[in-house]
Formats: sequence, C-alpha cells, structure tokens
Amino acid sequence: MPDPIIPSYEGDFVFAEDRRFQLFSGGKLQPVRLRYAIYGKLNERRDNVILVCHALTGSARVGDWWPQLFGDVFNLERDCIVGINIIGSCYGSTGPRDINPETGEVFGADFPLVTVRDWTRSQALLLDHLKIDKLRAVIGGSIGGMQAIQWAIDFPERVERCIGVGAAPLTAMGLALNHLQRLAIRTDKHWHDGRYEDDLAPKEGLALARAIAMISYKSAELLTERFTRKPNRNGENPLRSLNERYDVAGYLDYQGQGFTRRFDASSYLMITKAMDNFDPALGYPSEEAALARIRARVLLIGISSDWLFPAVEVKALSRRMRDSKVDAEYAEIESSHGHDGFLAEPQKLASLLNAILRS
Amino acid sequence: MPDPIIPSYEGDFVFAEDRRFQLFSGGKLQPVRLRYAIYGKLNERRDNVILVCHALTGSARVGDWWPQLFGDVFNLERDCIVGINIIGSCYGSTGPRDINPETGEVFGADFPLVTVRDWTRSQALLLDHLKIDKLRAVIGGSIGGMQAIQWAIDFPERVERCIGVGAAPLTAMGLALNHLQRLAIRTDKHWHDGRYEDDLAPKEGLALARAIAMISYKSAELLTERFTRKPNRNGENPLRSLNERYDVAGYLDYQGQGFTRRFDASSYLMITKAMDNFDPALGYPSEEAALARIRARVLLIGISSDWLFPAVEVKALSRRMRDSKVDAEYAEIESSHGHDGFLAEPQKLASLLNAILRS
Repeated sequence: MPDPIIPSYEGDFVFAEDRRFQLFSGGKLQPVRLRYAIYGKLNERRDNVILVCHALTGSARVGDWWPQLFGDVFNLERDCIVGINIIGSCYGSTGPRDINPETGEVFGADFPLVTVRDWTRSQALLLDHLKIDKLRAVIGGSIGGMQAIQWAIDFPERVERCIGVGAAPLTAMGLALNHLQRLAIRTDKHWHDGRYEDDLAPKEGLALARAIAMISYKSAELLTERFTRKPNRNGENPLRSLNERYDVAGYLDYQGQGFTRRFDASSYLMITKAMDNFDPALGYPSEEAALARIRARVLLIGISSDWLFPAVEVKALSRRMRDSKVDAEYAEIESSHGHDGFLAEPQKLASLLNAILRS
Repeated sequence: MPDPIIPSYEGDFVFAEDRRFQLFSGGKLQPVRLRYAIYGKLNERRDNVILVCHALTGSARVGDWWPQLFGDVFNLERDCIVGINIIGSCYGSTGPRDINPETGEVFGADFPLVTVRDWTRSQALLLDHLKIDKLRAVIGGSIGGMQAIQWAIDFPERVERCIGVGAAPLTAMGLALNHLQRLAIRTDKHWHDGRYEDDLAPKEGLALARAIAMISYKSAELLTERFTRKPNRNGENPLRSLNERYDVAGYLDYQGQGFTRRFDASSYLMITKAMDNFDPALGYPSEEAALARIRARVLLIGISSDWLFPAVEVKALSRRMRDSKVDAEYAEIESSHGHDGFLAEPQKLASLLNAILRS
C-alpha cells in the first residue's frame, strides 16, 4: 500500500471541570481532559464516524499507528475517523503525570484505577459534545479491541458495527505477563511510587517491561525466523563475555530503550492494570447479560500465532456472543507475527474490515 | 509412588589446586572445587554408575529434586547414582560468590564464562578421581539434559546411554527469556556487578528473574487450569487498587521471593549464560561432526506443552543425531506441565527411563 497522506485535526475536550467523573472502581477524577484527533469530515447526517480505539502505547493520532488502513479502509472522502487518547495515558489525556488537584503533587501511583468502562464512558461524553450520536463502527486491536467490545455492550444504541482484533479477557498467562512488566517498573530504583522527575524516570524498569512485552507481542516462530541464534549484529560474541549478546537480546534492549523516550512508566502501570481487569461482565449481572445488550454487528478477529490473546480465546468470546443472540462473526488472520499481527498485517486486516464496513 | 528413603554420601573434590583449569571460552579457574553426592554403592566392576546432571537451580543432591525416581528407576540395590554440582552454581562447587585469588575479592560478574563443555570436562576429572571409567547412563532434564548430550559427544567411550529431557539448543525465544531474566538482576540497585554483601543481595531483581522463568516453565494451559482469572487467594481485589493482584501474580511473587532465599543472583547469570551458549557444534568442526562422535544409545524426550524447549526442537535434534548415524530415539511426554514436566511427571518419565536403562 502507498503511504497515505493523512490530514488531521486535533483537539482537547475537558468534560469534568465542574463536576467529578466517577470511576468504575470507586475513584474519581476532576478535571478530566481528553485529547482527540479527527481525520476527514463529519457529513451532514453525522453518520459517517468510525471511532478507532488505540492500544496500550498508541495515541489519538490513528494515522501514526495504523497509517496503512487510510485510503482503502478509512476513506477520508467518505469516512470521519475519530481517535481518542484514553484516560491514564501519556499522550494528552488526563494521566498519572498530571497534578492531583487535591495534593498539588503529581498523581503517580495515586492515580485512581481506571477501567475499559471508564474509557468508553468518557469517550461517549466527547462524542456527545461533538454531537455524534451513532458510530458507523468502533474498531480497535488489543486494548483498542477491548474498548470496541465495551462500546458495543455499554452503548448498544450508538454502535452499528464493532470490530475487535486480538482482544478478549486476558488469560492467566496474559495476567502473569502484565504483572511481571509492572514488577519490572516498580523494582526500578527511580520508581518512587510514580513521583519522579522527568529526568529521573524509572527508565531501566520501563525498558525491561517493554522488552518483556515485546516477546509476548511476537511469536516464537517469528523470533526464530528473524534472529535464529545469531550473535548481536554489532559484532558481539556471547561466548566471550557475560555482556555480549545474541541478536534477539540486542533487539529487545534496543526496543526497550527507545520506548523510554516515548512512554511514561506510571501510564504503563495504569493501562496494563485496566487491560487485566477487562471483563464483559464488569458491572452487569453476568457475562451473558452484558453480551445480550449488544445490538451491533460484531466481527472478532484472532491472529493464528498470537499467544498473548490466543485466537482460541477470541473465537470463544465470539461464540459466547452468538450464544447471547448477538450477530457476531469470527475471522482469523494467518500470520507468524503474533499479537503484533494487528499492526503488522494491514493487508490481511484490510480485506476483513472492508467486508464488514461496506456491508 | 511412595516417598523413597535416600541414603547419600556427599564430598568435595578439588581438582585444580596446583594447575589451572582452562575454560572453553578462554578464562581459567584455580582452584576448582566440585561438590558431589553419591547414592548407593559402586560395585566391584565399577560399571553400575548413573550420572544424574542437574538443571539451573538444582544441586548435586539428586534425591532432593528427583526423589520420585529413586526406588524404581534408580534402584540403590543395583545402581550407584552420582550427582555433581556444576561450576558457577551456589550449591558447593566453585562459583561467583567465591574469592577470586587474583584480587582477593568476590568474583561477582568477573567470574569467567563457563560452558556446558567445562561442566562435563570437570565432571570427567572427578570421575577419573573416583576411578569410574564408564557410565551406564548419563541423565538430565533441561540444562541437565544439555550436560547429558555434551557427555555423549565429548566422552563417547565413557557413556553407554544418554538421556536428555526437554533439552536442545535454545531458540531465539529461549535466548530472549534468559536475557530478560539477566536484565532483571542487573537492573536491581543492589547488583553492583555481583560484588554485594550477602545481606544486600539483588533480591528484587532475582525474584523478578525467577518469576519470568516460572512462566516459561509452565504452559499457558496449566496456568489457566490452576489460576483462571481468580483474584489472589489472600482476598485481594485487583479492581480495587494497583497493588491488589490476580492469583497467578500472587503465585509468581511467592515463587520469586522464596527463590531469593535459596539461590544466588550471580550464579543465576552465569548458568543462564552457559544455557544460552549450549550448542553441540561448540569446539567441533560442525554439529554433524560433533554428533557423529556419539557412541551411546541416546533417548531424547520432549514434553508436549514445553515452550522453553519446544518438543519439536528436541525431536529435530534427535533426527539430526540419527542423520549422523547415532542410535538415537525420540519420545514425547504428553503433559500440560510445560518445561516443568521433567520434574512434575515422574511416572511418565519413569516408564521411559526404565525401558532404556534395562535394555
């Protein structure tokens, strides 16, 4: 696909300046700011909006992380694409690096627990403000897919199509991986419960967390293909000394270190915790009751080599939706990319998305 | 199986007091001490010895970590079981917590790089000392299996049977997992290049390393069976605060913390590095040339759900052995225990071991 040219409008929406935003887990926030980005134009009937929800380290700028879907799937002559940064993130919306108005200090680990439910409810308030009642579709991968599913449950009248890629409640292995990543950050000597100066951030811990995450985003097959047992490409020799690495280790270090320049450790904690806690049943009498609320046409997409959100789990969720009389389909992308397939396989994804979006 | 009663004789053997022990990677050690344990009696023909090689965190005391194999598989009326602690470990043999005679200080990260080849060569020197020429079998799981295979390559005339369980050269995923564990230790503020006081050891880093290792030792299926998405059994509620955990996280923390009371961080680094570097080709013109040296009857055992040493890799190694005209068989244990299956499935292992040991 050619590189698309993506116009973008960005804005901030402050929706809880005068009253508090009560969070599902009991905490509250006031004020709450949401950073959002709009690509394309809202049509007169205001019915051409596709809400695209981002994953753990994404932002409102959908064009930055899903550029290949613009043009063909997201046609800006026709569609109005809305991206909204989630509460707790470090890309413009209210998050743990903000000042806690009650203490005058940075929130850090005192930032209240947020859930996927809080994200969709806050996003709905922004859409109210923009006078967007209906979504032609809500789409996302990973945590973005959790939001898409939560939207379909919480606001059944507003969502026409719901598409989740590589998303389901985390299994025990996924919960374990997230826990290890948070532990890595909290073990860093600079963590200080999240009340660190920007130039004294827990970067080693965050880099390790990202490196742990990276192996969960890739399949073993892909790592073998790419790295085999080759020594690190800069000429290191793992047989010579403790510090000399294999290529896969050099890659993980590089990814981890680069990540610390673009992401915040306390946001990482908050968002992975919300990821842990995603469960359709949350706040409803049961999962069946929650799923039975859905009116949207649903497409859940699994990735064959995903071991963080195994395809079998995604498929099982779509089956439980059908058991609750939801119009839910399942499709699987054959890929060796693992969970990253939702970003790394835009062409395979595009054909599935086009089919449901044009229906 | 009933709990066996295991007599044990332990000893120390110092084999490089007056001359240096040259290591494969170029370093040297002097002196070198090996801690060993003997169960049962050497017979008059000195041909009833089974060398049992331990894994990463094991010791010479085979009875401590493979107790269920005593009685039926290891019959002390018939067999003489020898266990030898590997160089670099913290269970009695020379390791990084020893004093470096050249500096008068603890070795720490300056401990020379050891390889599986150094382990087998040092073990051979101990067996020379004990006047044991031939091994009825050499057996091990994981890193113990690497030693068994290395023994068959390096000392073809001395090994009658070689049995490796869940052992093959690590794939890129395995190399990545080991790297992350070492990174966890080195990120700990108490690491200090391994020159820490015993009461100021890098325990948080070591606990995290162990927790990362634990998920690689178990299958996703087993974690789901055991923990599902249950909150931590002590009554924590992950929806209430950042620090409250799911059950699988509580389990990993418990395992990690317990481990710091019985293992040393610098040994962990040294041994995982040797695990990385295991490769039959090491020091030979090629893998074929190395494997072609083997005269032992070989049994490699894969565990169906092992993702650290995937069964397919173990099977492929046995096939390459057969391509090199080795009498090598492959067997697979069906188990949801993952890599831990070599410890957790003694009954399934016993029947396979009995078949080859009694042949």
